[in-house]
Amino acid sequence: MSKEQISQENIVVGEIANGLPLTIPVYRLKGDGSGPHVYIQANMHGAEVQGNAVIYQLLEQLQKLPLKGDITLVPYANPIGCNQKSGEFTLGRFDPITGTNWNRMYHFNSELAKQIAEQYRNSDDQTLTTAFKNALISDIEKLLSGPAYRLTTGKRIALNLQKLAHQADIVLDLHTGPISSKHLYCPAYTTKSAHYFNIPHVLVIPNEFDGAMDEASFCPWWQLSDELAKEGREFAVQVEAFTVELGSQEKIDLVAALDDAHSILSYLNHKNVFVDAPFQPAAITRYGCKLNDYVAYYAPIGGMVEYLAPLGGHIKAGEPIAHILRMERYLTEQPLQTLTFEHDAIAILHFASASVNQGTELYKFFTNTFEL
Amino acid sequence: MSKEQISQENIVVGEIANGLPLTIPVYRLKGDGSGPHVYIQANMHGAEVQGNAVIYQLLEQLQKLPLKGDITLVPYANPIGCNQKSGEFTLGRFDPITGTNWNRMYHFNSELAKQIAEQYRNSDDQTLTTAFKNALISDIEKLLSGPAYRLTTGKRIALNLQKLAHQADIVLDLHTGPISSKHLYCPAYTTKSAHYFNIPHVLVIPNEFDGAMDEASFCPWWQLSDELAKEGREFAVQVEAFTVELGSQEKIDLVAALDDAHSILSYLNHKNVFVDAPFQPAAITRYGCKLNDYVAYYAPIGGMVEYLAPLGGHIKAGEPIAHILRMERYLTEQPLQTLTFEHDAIAILHFASASVNQGTELYKFFTNTFEL
Amino acid sequence: MSKEQISQENIVVGEIANGLPLTIPVYRLKGDGSGPHVYIQANMHGAEVQGNAVIYQLLEQLQKLPLKGDITLVPYANPIGCNQKSGEFTLGRFDPITGTNWNRMYHFNSELAKQIAEQYRNSDDQTLTTAFKNALISDIEKLLSGPAYRLTTGKRIALNLQKLAHQADIVLDLHTGPISSKHLYCPAYTTKSAHYFNIPHVLVIPNEFDGAMDEASFCPWWQLSDELAKEGREFAVQVEAFTVELGSQEKIDLVAALDDAHSILSYLNHKNVFVDAPFQPAAITRYGCKLNDYVAYYAPIGGMVEYLAPLGGHIKAGEPIAHILRMERYLTEQPLQTLTFEHDAIAILHFASASVNQGTELYKFFTNTFEL
Amino acid sequence: MSKEQISQENIVVGEIANGLPLTIPVYRLKGDGSGPHVYIQANMHGAEVQGNAVIYQLLEQLQKLPLKGDITLVPYANPIGCNQKSGEFTLGRFDPITGTNWNRMYHFNSELAKQIAEQYRNSDDQTLTTAFKNALISDIEKLLSGPAYRLTTGKRIALNLQKLAHQADIVLDLHTGPISSKHLYCPAYTTKSAHYFNIPHVLVIPNEFDGAMDEASFCPWWQLSDELAKEGREFAVQVEAFTVELGSQEKIDLVAALDDAHSILSYLNHKNVFVDAPFQPAAITRYGCKLNDYVAYYAPIGGMVEYLAPLGGHIKAGEPIAHILRMERYLTEQPLQTLTFEHDAIAILHFASASVNQGTELYKFFTNTFEL
Repeated sequence: MSKEQISQENIVVGEIANGLPLTIPVYRLKGDGSGPHVYIQANMHGAEVQGNAVIYQLLEQLQKLPLKGDITLVPYANPIGCNQKSGEFTLGRFDPITGTNWNRMYHFNSELAKQIAEQYRNSDDQTLTTAFKNALISDIEKLLSGPAYRLTTGKRIALNLQKLAHQADIVLDLHTGPISSKHLYCPAYTTKSAHYFNIPHVLVIPNEFDGAMDEASFCPWWQLSDELAKEGREFAVQVEAFTVELGSQEKIDLVAALDDAHSILSYLNHKNVFVDAPFQPAAITRYGCKLNDYVAYYAPIGGMVEYLAPLGGHIKAGEPIAHILRMERYLTEQPLQTLTFEHDAIAILHFASASVNQGTELYKFFTNTFEL
Repeated sequence: MSKEQISQENIVVGEIANGLPLTIPVYRLKGDGSGPHVYIQANMHGAEVQGNAVIYQLLEQLQKLPLKGDITLVPYANPIGCNQKSGEFTLGRFDPITGTNWNRMYHFNSELAKQIAEQYRNSDDQTLTTAFKNALISDIEKLLSGPAYRLTTGKRIALNLQKLAHQADIVLDLHTGPISSKHLYCPAYTTKSAHYFNIPHVLVIPNEFDGAMDEASFCPWWQLSDELAKEGREFAVQVEAFTVELGSQEKIDLVAALDDAHSILSYLNHKNVFVDAPFQPAAITRYGCKLNDYVAYYAPIGGMVEYLAPLGGHIKAGEPIAHILRMERYLTEQPLQTLTFEHDAIAILHFASASVNQGTELYKFFTNTFEL
Repeated sequence: MSKEQISQENIVVGEIANGLPLTIPVYRLKGDGSGPHVYIQANMHGAEVQGNAVIYQLLEQLQKLPLKGDITLVPYANPIGCNQKSGEFTLGRFDPITGTNWNRMYHFNSELAKQIAEQYRNSDDQTLTTAFKNALISDIEKLLSGPAYRLTTGKRIALNLQKLAHQADIVLDLHTGPISSKHLYCPAYTTKSAHYFNIPHVLVIPNEFDGAMDEASFCPWWQLSDELAKEGREFAVQVEAFTVELGSQEKIDLVAALDDAHSILSYLNHKNVFVDAPFQPAAITRYGCKLNDYVAYYAPIGGMVEYLAPLGGHIKAGEPIAHILRMERYLTEQPLQTLTFEHDAIAILHFASASVNQGTELYKFFTNTFEL
Repeated sequence: MSKEQISQENIVVGEIANGLPLTIPVYRLKGDGSGPHVYIQANMHGAEVQGNAVIYQLLEQLQKLPLKGDITLVPYANPIGCNQKSGEFTLGRFDPITGTNWNRMYHFNSELAKQIAEQYRNSDDQTLTTAFKNALISDIEKLLSGPAYRLTTGKRIALNLQKLAHQADIVLDLHTGPISSKHLYCPAYTTKSAHYFNIPHVLVIPNEFDGAMDEASFCPWWQLSDELAKEGREFAVQVEAFTVELGSQEKIDLVAALDDAHSILSYLNHKNVFVDAPFQPAAITRYGCKLNDYVAYYAPIGGMVEYLAPLGGHIKAGEPIAHILRMERYLTEQPLQTLTFEHDAIAILHFASASVNQGTELYKFFTNTFEL
């Protein structure tokens, strides 16, 4: 392949107040049709920019590779979040008008799997798969072509992206934490695949829809598999979808992006997206944690925080994880307080600011971890 | 009564980054014990300030009245939202850090009603009521006295308020819309009570918990009633709770506040909170609408909006409800577009700004309305 | 004229983070060359949208009129401010990154008038005028074509607009106050012209540059006139520029916009922009106030505000202008305090929100007013 | 000394919308009266929290030292900025309502030095110094005790701090850059003193008042010195004031804070604040740069930025300082552009976010540097 074989389309996903269209660039590479279709998007949350750099490095690599499957790449997935500043930082985690998290607005119709399972219970796997994929896509199209007054700003963006994602067999949504180590959201049915990413921390998530892109992609297929299992038919989940957390927000690092591109290429190679590609996973220990054991630690008091727990590091119950400085009460109480956590844990991410109210999310910890 | 018989307590609900405490003023008036306990709060959303003026007018009136029931009044219920500016306006509908709506963080434990129904199925109503009230309060206290690191900023504020509310038999949460006519959120089991407020528009809501104060107050009792009904025991819902939408945000109007105080006093009089008080409801037509028929109308295109539908007014399907001006395309398309809605409706509120993205919530409409 | 004779150009004034261009629509109508060139822009501050509606109404009228002078109309002058939301409201008074007021970034080179006065002291008026106009434009062009790294986001927008404005003889910058009555910023040398606008309140401003569009347009010419006067040559200020404050922000009203369009057409008719047009000023009393007598009144205490002074109304010293409600201290101090102002005044505008910190600008008053 | 000899006062500097007071903690240590009075404040900009940690480390040290001069320490100098969040970050560089930089609101009365120079021209130095100090303080007090409606929120905070600062002979205002190396704003008359701080980069600033605390502290005394020089009297500038830029915002680092405390103690030791203290400056090369040569480099295009210039490092003209990634145009232009700067320079700070509009301040550079 070469750069000439990449095509670009700008899809319109909205209009802003001065009437200008909101567009998202979509890059496509064609495979020979013998491999799975891949969809990768980045920057749904405005401050989480590193995924764009990973897509850049992927495009630089992919144009040199013979492809079996089609690949669709979408940087700048959220043209509002991406450009919303408040002070020096990007305020792009939620719609500034409503507060709704941009990654909680995807669509899920829990009736669809039941209907298709009922209707195609006796069809072969290929027919069933095609029928369900078409049903998912046309369910989205129906919403997009319904009365325009029924769609919020974020829903319209989400549906346009989801329509692209539903065409794929593999969906990767590139995010970052605030200040964070790399981690992967991986649905429980495919933890094997997590071994092909060079990501040491893996969150194992159940079949529950909470509005995010990865869930919107795999929940329907997982549900279809479950529905058919009830009737005694074994039907593998046909789609794999992951949220890939690349590290920290508000940061572009092209060398790290190349590493992350290799991690993704290794996974895609495992999934037979390429003809004879060399990408292999790194030999690292991968730690898993169930979603229920992923614990948020909120600031027990307000103050100025010195973060002490090394991100990605294993901490012991009772070890210091932060100092809280409270200069308001230097004379009347201990002005420097040490925080601890009551469980052994891996510190995955911490808050982006050093100044916190009581109740601000300070850390997120893997607990009850296991080697994957 | 007189001003001397009002007591004030400032409850601590958090700490901000410089270590200063967040406090909320709580005013209490004691009744003779023969009437229901009333809890009224205001300004949970920062820009919805008019409720404070209503509490002011209530205090001015209540101190002259002999009371049967205790009354607890809480203005400035949200000391963060109340003081969060962004530009000239108050950015107080959601936590500025997380985007979470401040009125979606109350607690609901769906196990509690089942447990109490099971345990007290043979007790008399009074014992049952006391047991459940105590269970609700101690459930909140358990959370508040658990590890501090488990509570978000908003949850801690909400739980402190909810602890006060659970002590009452009547709960009123005073809100406003953006630009809005008066309306009342009323649980379906007590639409009769809606006739005692001077509020012409009544949303009839089902027994579903979505995080709001009114729901947090009545859902447990409604659920308890339902649990007991399953076993054949008729047990009336013991608590009434309403969200009272007073009009528009960012506005203090003391004359309107006195009207709204009278509306509330009329309802409380009906509920036997006072000894020989004169307050009676106004003779107005009240229109109801089921929550499912409360329709949001999102801007079908981006632009500058001239709102045309009179708030509180009945509009016919197809009538103009807004003009959208799009000066970007004066020469290439019709620059002034007229919006309509496809149903007969009552326009309850509209967006606060004249400048909208495609997908911004423009209006909320009552549809399928009925006389209450 | 007709709609076909209006031309549109979209000028590029910047690029946002996802690489998309920021553009501003510029509408032009050609005159027969015998009248002055007019430049009108709107919406430099994001929430001040009504100017766009006035430009709409102007375009509707102007296309029917034979023109002597060229007219350039620029709605949506600030594509960042216009689309920057924070909560429901538009946060468009200042750059959200730096805090700089968008209308304080125009350019003024105080050397230019001196140089031209020196160089063209013996030229005729027409030559002098042309030379200075060209010098102003090329001074802007030099900045725009200099190293791109020297220009801030706001400066680049301002310079692009200023380049258009410097080509005109009449410059109108359409703004609104927060909640406001109509008023006009009028340079002292041309208060006569203020009689042709239907605006009852006129601020008379001196020859001082503070960064705004009106000043950037007239200060150079006023300074040139002053420089030549020093040498004994009488040379009238060749450019008139006004900031027209149309009323309140966050509001589109097409009927009011038509009124304001007539007000502007009346002034332009007076300036011989049209061939035989009927527009005449209304017979109203116009009150003037010197800029130094335009007094900001900051909240002397924090609280919830009920605004009492009628906007555009004449208040007497000592009359109540606002109530401040302070429910935090209902029992310990007077919870409802009345504010007064120590001078007779006209209340021109007040703050947009009802919730204020101590020191928030509550009102702006004309004092020492006079009939114009 | 010991902790018992530190006193705390909480000064009230305002009131927020719910009526609660805004207070600032002021810590004081008494000297024996034989040394200069020192004033140190921190966190005037909300995100610049590290100064609080430095004050913590100073208090830990100072309480063990015998003092000649009094020391006043003020952490959390700005209770609004400190607690203003927008998304995860602190939005504390400017008033969120007005956009005014919190560190541009101090007071300067250019008449005062002239009056005192005139009135005390024949007095001895001590009398003159005392008279001017008193005049400065009473000028502030007059504003603070004037009509409350004349003061903005930020002005009231600034004046309260300035009143404390004017009592001192040495004023240190602790700030940080966004992402920044340590640097010092040093008035030109006292560059010698810069050798006692362990700060390698020194901005030499002229006698011009632009609203900041350091200028508000030294400009009056510098002006007084200049006024007397005109009359032939040599009178040294009696006050030294510095803005100390400690590093990056949104970060608490207690070890770095101890280093910075030592740097300040070394300077104070040089100024004879202590009896027999051991603190000496580090042997480092210090580079100076005149304020006019401190160059802001604005993003010449919009995009995602990888910062390449090492902060505090010396870069050569033409060397890469950043990559700008523009994924919108991967196929149509070079998606990864390299920025350079045309001068040899020291990169002092860069923008905090990786996502920039055209015209965002990317870097600030020392140019024309010299060894101090």
